[in-house]
Amino acid sequence: MPILNKDMSVCISLAGRPSNLGTRFHNFLYDELGLNFIYKAFTTDDIEGAVRGIRALGIRGCSVSMPFKEAVIPLVDVVEPSAAAIESVNTIVSDDGVLSASNTDYEAIAQLIAEHRLDPAQRVLVRGSGGMAKAVVAAFRGAGFTDLSIVARNADAGGALAEKYRYHWVADDPEPDFDVIVNVTPLGMHGADAAALAFAPESIERANTVFDVVAFPAETPLIRAARAAGKPVITGAEVIALQAARQFERYTGVPLTREQVERASAFSREE
Amino acid sequence: MPILNKDMSVCISLAGRPSNLGTRFHNFLYDELGLNFIYKAFTTDDIEGAVRGIRALGIRGCSVSMPFKEAVIPLVDVVEPSAAAIESVNTIVSDDGVLSASNTDYEAIAQLIAEHRLDPAQRVLVRGSGGMAKAVVAAFRGAGFTDLSIVARNADAGGALAEKYRYHWVADDPEPDFDVIVNVTPLGMHGADAAALAFAPESIERANTVFDVVAFPAETPLIRAARAAGKPVITGAEVIALQAARQFERYTGVPLTREQVERASAFSREE
Repeated sequence: MPILNKDMSVCISLAGRPSNLGTRFHNFLYDELGLNFIYKAFTTDDIEGAVRGIRALGIRGCSVSMPFKEAVIPLVDVVEPSAAAIESVNTIVSDDGVLSASNTDYEAIAQLIAEHRLDPAQRVLVRGSGGMAKAVVAAFRGAGFTDLSIVARNADAGGALAEKYRYHWVADDPEPDFDVIVNVTPLGMHGADAAALAFAPESIERANTVFDVVAFPAETPLIRAARAAGKPVITGAEVIALQAARQFERYTGVPLTREQVERASAFSREE
Repeated sequence: MPILNKDMSVCISLAGRPSNLGTRFHNFLYDELGLNFIYKAFTTDDIEGAVRGIRALGIRGCSVSMPFKEAVIPLVDVVEPSAAAIESVNTIVSDDGVLSASNTDYEAIAQLIAEHRLDPAQRVLVRGSGGMAKAVVAAFRGAGFTDLSIVARNADAGGALAEKYRYHWVADDPEPDFDVIVNVTPLGMHGADAAALAFAPESIERANTVFDVVAFPAETPLIRAARAAGKPVITGAEVIALQAARQFERYTGVPLTREQVERASAFSREE
């Protein structure tokens, strides 16, 4: 990478606990594509001041993570449908000082539902009730699915999520009678729950599509069991790659190939 | 330069019309010294928002240029003597969110007056009445000089500057009877005034020190004439190198050698 210059467009991220992934992902591709951009992660204890700084300094884009995803909504000029649908922002783009907020997680999930040609008549079971579960459930609602159940131990969060999108909440696993099963919990993720299988084998056997939002690792026990059973899968790696590509394109105007995204993702995880 | 990382300290500049000099100077040295810093020039139409952004984003330092040098004073927490003396800021440093403002132009001039052992009993003639002339005049006042005349065609600015520091203003060149002559106008600078000699030959002949604040080029007609006459000189290149080194040290804690400053300055002017 050459020495910085004054004309570089600047993108940043705002997170309570910044990781290095975004900084490495975006700069890797800026470098490879010869774009005059830099990207740098920040944290803040003054989200209003940070967004004011984005405006005042002419920062081109800002990736938004926990705990700022809702707090930035009143601070921007335009809330796009993807962010409005789930009241959560992960991407801000500044066009000559007009800040538009979107949610590329929602967009990525909606695109994957479409690309994998999931049928809105199918019965869906979603496990989880956090922020990403909201994006998943809203995307299924947006795609016209009418029969969806949310299984979550947190009755308040699960019930509220189901009610908001006019679906059902259940506390315990229902009978294995779903076409699409979706894990949006940490079950199967690196760490304490790495060995956990997010759905029972009979649910996997009954399903015709298995979707796991966990991205680290992409090959969770659930995804491995689904592949072993010959089921089509959608992985968290697809979600994360697609949302990152959409974010990158919004900031730079440059669309990415799947191969570019994969190489940048691999690089971003290296250290 | 390696791919950026999330832990880099960020320094910026704010100017109405950013040049590339600071961005190239600082990043060249970060790279050479292996410092985990980046520096990037910005402009703004909302100086208050920009300073709020510096606070909110935890930006380490900010170089301030025209037209923001006075406007930032009420926005910082501490105004150091170098900035207070001339009501002008060119450097802001954030220590855990506490913003301190200083003026390294003033500091550099004060240091050069001391290093060149100019005698406060000497008679000084300063040509010019702009922001840099203010730094020069204030530094002579701070060093204890009592006999200083300001020659400036702008009666308002020249008169006000002289009055503020309790010196004399003259509209036209006085008799050549000064020990130290200082040019703080664009005379001799690259461009329309490149061939102009800032003081008459007899003034140069009478002086014992010739000081030209013009840095581009450092070898102005005035400096060349002074050297030819065997007079000790202080050049604008010395001012700019010293002020940049002080700024760099404030941001990073790392003192620079003259040789490092010279190489970085040369690099910054290359393109």
